[in-house]
Amino acid sequence: MNALYLRKRIVYCKMSNTFGKILRLTTFGESHGNAVGCVVDGCPSGLAISLSDIQKELDRRRPGQSSLTSPRNEADKVQVLCGIFEGKTLGTPIAMVVGNRDQDPSKYMGIKDTPRPGHADYTWRAKYGFVDFRGGGRSSARETVGRVSGGAVAKKLLKKFGVCTVAFAREIGGVECDADFKFRKNIHAVIDSNPARTLDRETSLLMEEVIMEAKSAGDSVGGIIECVTTGVPPGLGEPVFDKLSADIGKAVLSIPAVKGVEFGEGFNMALMLGSEANDEFIVKGKNIITKSNNSGGIQGGISNGMPIVIRVAVKPTASIAKRQNTVNLKTGKKTQIRIEGRHDPCIVPRAVPVVEAMVNLVLADHMLIAGKIPQRL
Amino acid sequence: MNALYLRKRIVYCKMSNTFGKILRLTTFGESHGNAVGCVVDGCPSGLAISLSDIQKELDRRRPGQSSLTSPRNEADKVQVLCGIFEGKTLGTPIAMVVGNRDQDPSKYMGIKDTPRPGHADYTWRAKYGFVDFRGGGRSSARETVGRVSGGAVAKKLLKKFGVCTVAFAREIGGVECDADFKFRKNIHAVIDSNPARTLDRETSLLMEEVIMEAKSAGDSVGGIIECVTTGVPPGLGEPVFDKLSADIGKAVLSIPAVKGVEFGEGFNMALMLGSEANDEFIVKGKNIITKSNNSGGIQGGISNGMPIVIRVAVKPTASIAKRQNTVNLKTGKKTQIRIEGRHDPCIVPRAVPVVEAMVNLVLADHMLIAGKIPQRL
Amino acid sequence: MNALYLRKRIVYCKMSNTFGKILRLTTFGESHGNAVGCVVDGCPSGLAISLSDIQKELDRRRPGQSSLTSPRNEADKVQVLCGIFEGKTLGTPIAMVVGNRDQDPSKYMGIKDTPRPGHADYTWRAKYGFVDFRGGGRSSARETVGRVSGGAVAKKLLKKFGVCTVAFAREIGGVECDADFKFRKNIHAVIDSNPARTLDRETSLLMEEVIMEAKSAGDSVGGIIECVTTGVPPGLGEPVFDKLSADIGKAVLSIPAVKGVEFGEGFNMALMLGSEANDEFIVKGKNIITKSNNSGGIQGGISNGMPIVIRVAVKPTASIAKRQNTVNLKTGKKTQIRIEGRHDPCIVPRAVPVVEAMVNLVLADHMLIAGKIPQRL
Amino acid sequence: MNALYLRKRIVYCKMSNTFGKILRLTTFGESHGNAVGCVVDGCPSGLAISLSDIQKELDRRRPGQSSLTSPRNEADKVQVLCGIFEGKTLGTPIAMVVGNRDQDPSKYMGIKDTPRPGHADYTWRAKYGFVDFRGGGRSSARETVGRVSGGAVAKKLLKKFGVCTVAFAREIGGVECDADFKFRKNIHAVIDSNPARTLDRETSLLMEEVIMEAKSAGDSVGGIIECVTTGVPPGLGEPVFDKLSADIGKAVLSIPAVKGVEFGEGFNMALMLGSEANDEFIVKGKNIITKSNNSGGIQGGISNGMPIVIRVAVKPTASIAKRQNTVNLKTGKKTQIRIEGRHDPCIVPRAVPVVEAMVNLVLADHMLIAGKIPQRL
Repeated sequence: MNALYLRKRIVYCKMSNTFGKILRLTTFGESHGNAVGCVVDGCPSGLAISLSDIQKELDRRRPGQSSLTSPRNEADKVQVLCGIFEGKTLGTPIAMVVGNRDQDPSKYMGIKDTPRPGHADYTWRAKYGFVDFRGGGRSSARETVGRVSGGAVAKKLLKKFGVCTVAFAREIGGVECDADFKFRKNIHAVIDSNPARTLDRETSLLMEEVIMEAKSAGDSVGGIIECVTTGVPPGLGEPVFDKLSADIGKAVLSIPAVKGVEFGEGFNMALMLGSEANDEFIVKGKNIITKSNNSGGIQGGISNGMPIVIRVAVKPTASIAKRQNTVNLKTGKKTQIRIEGRHDPCIVPRAVPVVEAMVNLVLADHMLIAGKIPQRL
Repeated sequence: MNALYLRKRIVYCKMSNTFGKILRLTTFGESHGNAVGCVVDGCPSGLAISLSDIQKELDRRRPGQSSLTSPRNEADKVQVLCGIFEGKTLGTPIAMVVGNRDQDPSKYMGIKDTPRPGHADYTWRAKYGFVDFRGGGRSSARETVGRVSGGAVAKKLLKKFGVCTVAFAREIGGVECDADFKFRKNIHAVIDSNPARTLDRETSLLMEEVIMEAKSAGDSVGGIIECVTTGVPPGLGEPVFDKLSADIGKAVLSIPAVKGVEFGEGFNMALMLGSEANDEFIVKGKNIITKSNNSGGIQGGISNGMPIVIRVAVKPTASIAKRQNTVNLKTGKKTQIRIEGRHDPCIVPRAVPVVEAMVNLVLADHMLIAGKIPQRL
Repeated sequence: MNALYLRKRIVYCKMSNTFGKILRLTTFGESHGNAVGCVVDGCPSGLAISLSDIQKELDRRRPGQSSLTSPRNEADKVQVLCGIFEGKTLGTPIAMVVGNRDQDPSKYMGIKDTPRPGHADYTWRAKYGFVDFRGGGRSSARETVGRVSGGAVAKKLLKKFGVCTVAFAREIGGVECDADFKFRKNIHAVIDSNPARTLDRETSLLMEEVIMEAKSAGDSVGGIIECVTTGVPPGLGEPVFDKLSADIGKAVLSIPAVKGVEFGEGFNMALMLGSEANDEFIVKGKNIITKSNNSGGIQGGISNGMPIVIRVAVKPTASIAKRQNTVNLKTGKKTQIRIEGRHDPCIVPRAVPVVEAMVNLVLADHMLIAGKIPQRL
Repeated sequence: MNALYLRKRIVYCKMSNTFGKILRLTTFGESHGNAVGCVVDGCPSGLAISLSDIQKELDRRRPGQSSLTSPRNEADKVQVLCGIFEGKTLGTPIAMVVGNRDQDPSKYMGIKDTPRPGHADYTWRAKYGFVDFRGGGRSSARETVGRVSGGAVAKKLLKKFGVCTVAFAREIGGVECDADFKFRKNIHAVIDSNPARTLDRETSLLMEEVIMEAKSAGDSVGGIIECVTTGVPPGLGEPVFDKLSADIGKAVLSIPAVKGVEFGEGFNMALMLGSEANDEFIVKGKNIITKSNNSGGIQGGISNGMPIVIRVAVKPTASIAKRQNTVNLKTGKKTQIRIEGRHDPCIVPRAVPVVEAMVNLVLADHMLIAGKIPQRL
């Protein structure tokens, strides 16, 4: 039945692996192919950047960094093929490649024809017909290696212009971090110093507990990532379709496992009165700022100079050890599946640098569009 | 001080008024200029469409339709300039124009230099310097006339291929509609029959009450719009950056006053276990479907054939009669403002057709990209 | 036979009516519909521009201006719908509309099913199936009304930054204008003062003669348009795919009836030695310029500050009174056709402002991309 | 003087290294960096393709293949990083890399500050400020390695749908090949069997003679490449800005050293009468074709099913051994230059596969846009 079924539903489609307008990221590579990587196009010439600026970010997303993450052991050493000369960008495309090493495709042979619930197996197959089933192929979160490499370039560029993005786990498996976010110089180090990547050690311990509990039960948990950017000048964003909020929203919604995004008070705003929600303007020194920041730094789709605040909903990892019902695509009969592989019981800590990367890519692009970053440094 | 301030913060920027890849919508027009309108490019040739197909949708968004909406009296009669011949589309651009009639710019003279809290006045001015301050110019929600006109073409096109989108007020001012959404043939008529545009008359009455209460207090309320699309084939969406969720997310986040979006169980997913969140596959007749629809019809960024379910957070109308603090941009001194104009105390009911329009535009575009709708009917 | 034939060859396709990256022109309208026009998006805010700046350019391309042009009598009065406020651009889309008045579709009924040789009738029909056959519909040169309107905005913008484009008839029907082009302040007036739009009155008389001769014979002639732009700063053009020459080339090749384009010495370069072709660098005052300008102001795809020189081959008008062989698409049998309508025996003089418009649009766009024109004036 | 000069002329600019709409090619890499290469995005899934399909094309453009070409010895072995699985494309990005081996940057140290006449040295420097001066960096023709790799994928795809592109030297250094082009099965082999890549051995000998003569004189020659594509279905091309001729024109004008392009009779058309130029329609078997093909297979910007014929003007190689005048950018004083390096005395034979690659990329893209090639094979 099902072969027929799939044929009937054949959907012809292109996929688009490029993101951005002036600063453009193209990612490539399957989970179990030779390599994954990216090409960053449109970075201004003359930006000082070192290999370790990029490697540092990849180390934050790589598997095997703590007990909370997948034991797949990938050093994820990045190689830069071009676009950087004598330690500075040339303005030409920067191609970066990371080899795939610790592959174990055997785990995937058994589930070749049984789509994993919550995964892209079924939809990907419905779309392409011919797929690299090993480890999800290109639908694997391993694709985000390219995003993080490209994001590292954007981060370095933004830093030069005083813009800094920090993401952290606001909530994991129902455990909420209730500390107020405060921007500090070492804030990245603080967050990276705990395995859950939250604001404080105590909350991290509680989060680790729910994660390990889910893991022992062959299950997984999700959470909420908060991301704050300071130093954004007013005037970024194009006021109709390419609002700054719309572009950031698209960027984070394109990250695997993300199911929602909100800006400032977001969904809470639906419960507020206009007189509560409106951010009043005040004078502070020589600047006009707003007293509150319910709008999360974006009004009418354009940045107003206040910190940009977003929250991102991350679903629990789809790959779980528990037995689940599914259907065999070849026979069309129902069956059950237990996913072995090596998976993260909670993807939130490793998704933190990915959210930062995507937000930085959008902001650097809009800084370039707005002429706040020149094309030649 | 402030002239200097604004100069220092000058941000050069382009604005992009075009949306979509194959089916492309360009909107134009200021709130108090000669006209607003749009150009729809990329619609297949041979689609039967009448003027009333378009006018009907505009009537759903026009002001003055109920006591809940702004009393600005605009008939909003649309004129089609080209692209339709003998009742059918030519495949060429369809240009549509709606004149602005009931303009009252006098109300805006007094607030020319005092940005309204919660509005785009300040950010728009920071960006462009020279602005049409009358009624918000192009940052006015009047710009959505073009979106709804274009969305009407997308709706007609999708209808031919069995795809139907229905939005409604899920929550207004804290009043939630707790009825389950069920798709019925007359569902649009049911929703349009109550002023709040929710699922039942009783809830509408409660919603109207909180809206009118806020209005009498010179205040406003927000809410949540839910939008469900049935008949979407599996395989829409491009799996990396242009995920169907990412594209729909961007589309609705570009609507004025929207501060968040979620898909399926959305932010709730952050609290679920993987075993609860995953949608198991089952066989139903000749199709493979999922038992639950927590993912809202999109997995790995690609549609799976289940209904697409999104929820959109709408903030309370920024224009309120209550006195608010702000700053005079010319003097740089603090001042107060009371907004007169004619405003909706709650924008949710009129935003319902706008959400439908944007979702329909994205889906029609992806149907065309995927080859599910041919370029010639 | 042929109905079958057409069906078999069905080609699904989108058409793209938008041009440019930052400064973007969308044109719309059929030859015999209600109106033709355009939307210009991405023009900086604060540019002073009047209706007559636009009308003046349209007057140069309108029919009926001399004995050499089609007698179709169109005043071509342009109406601006939005985007200009108190005589200055807002940075928002500028929508412009020109009504179609002197339509005479009766002439086209007889040739509905017999494609005119040299015309787009056959290919357009093969592509779209359903077409507005009256006067070529959208394949008519009347579409260039939108290009010239948009080009007028680009021209005004470039003028502010010292860039000036001048096109003229270099050759018509074998009569060549052998005068050297010299840039003068009144050069546009000189060229517009003769019906052939060439550099001097004497050549114009000879050109008029061959045109009128062809006309009396029920025939038509073509020619070559030369276009020179001065004041272009070095550094425009993106060095790989979006070379300045590639973008200008695409722009002029998109004009109806254009069959070739060359830059500087162009095809002559194929006959030169490297030592003859290379433009040597010399110092002139404080600038580095080249001694010769064989490369036409573009090297490696990037402008070098010398005048940009192109030549464009225009084919003879396809619509001729002479009897021609063709095929009836309905019967599939051969037949003959005599085209009545009202046609230009030579399109070159009216194509001159269209070439200028397209070159100006590309240059203004690249000036914006390169940051040589800010987004806010 | 000149440091100042360059600063004054600073031009901020992005470069765009991506080409195409659905089938998209991104190239990367400098002449003397680690590697050059490309990413091909948007190729349908399921296309059978081998490494040798790609290598074969690279072998046709690599240096050192005959006495006519540069002695730089690059094996140009291509490595495929991803996107192909078990000999078939996955529909995911195909990343291809070619290492740079035989580099000799020493030759370039002496001319670091003296722009070579006819080269991109000066314009590139005016644009980017910081450049990889070794071997032209990214302005080097070595960038075309990526184009030819990507073109090989397009060629394979087109072959499956009966479309075949053949380019050859129509003229070199004034020696014209006057044979009519006839499509034959082994036509590629015939053309590749002579060093000049022309239609017959005798003409090749004459061409080799003028090339070697120029070489001994420390000079270079240019030529004209003709390119013919058969099997193109009617209906490709979008009728306003993205005409098939406009897109092909842009593609070939983006190739280094190209200064002109014409379609069908091209510039000759300027000398013809309408009655001579128009291609009459005739019935042939079950098809409608044109009797002549003056329009080169494209009418109104859309393919008509006849062979697509273009001619491309290639200037003589800019790098010549003869002493030339130039200016030292550091001192601002005039100086002389003799270019050593290893250069082709005529680039035409090696440019032949590059022209084919670009034409194939455009045609495959338009076949995909038009739905003539599905997204899943």
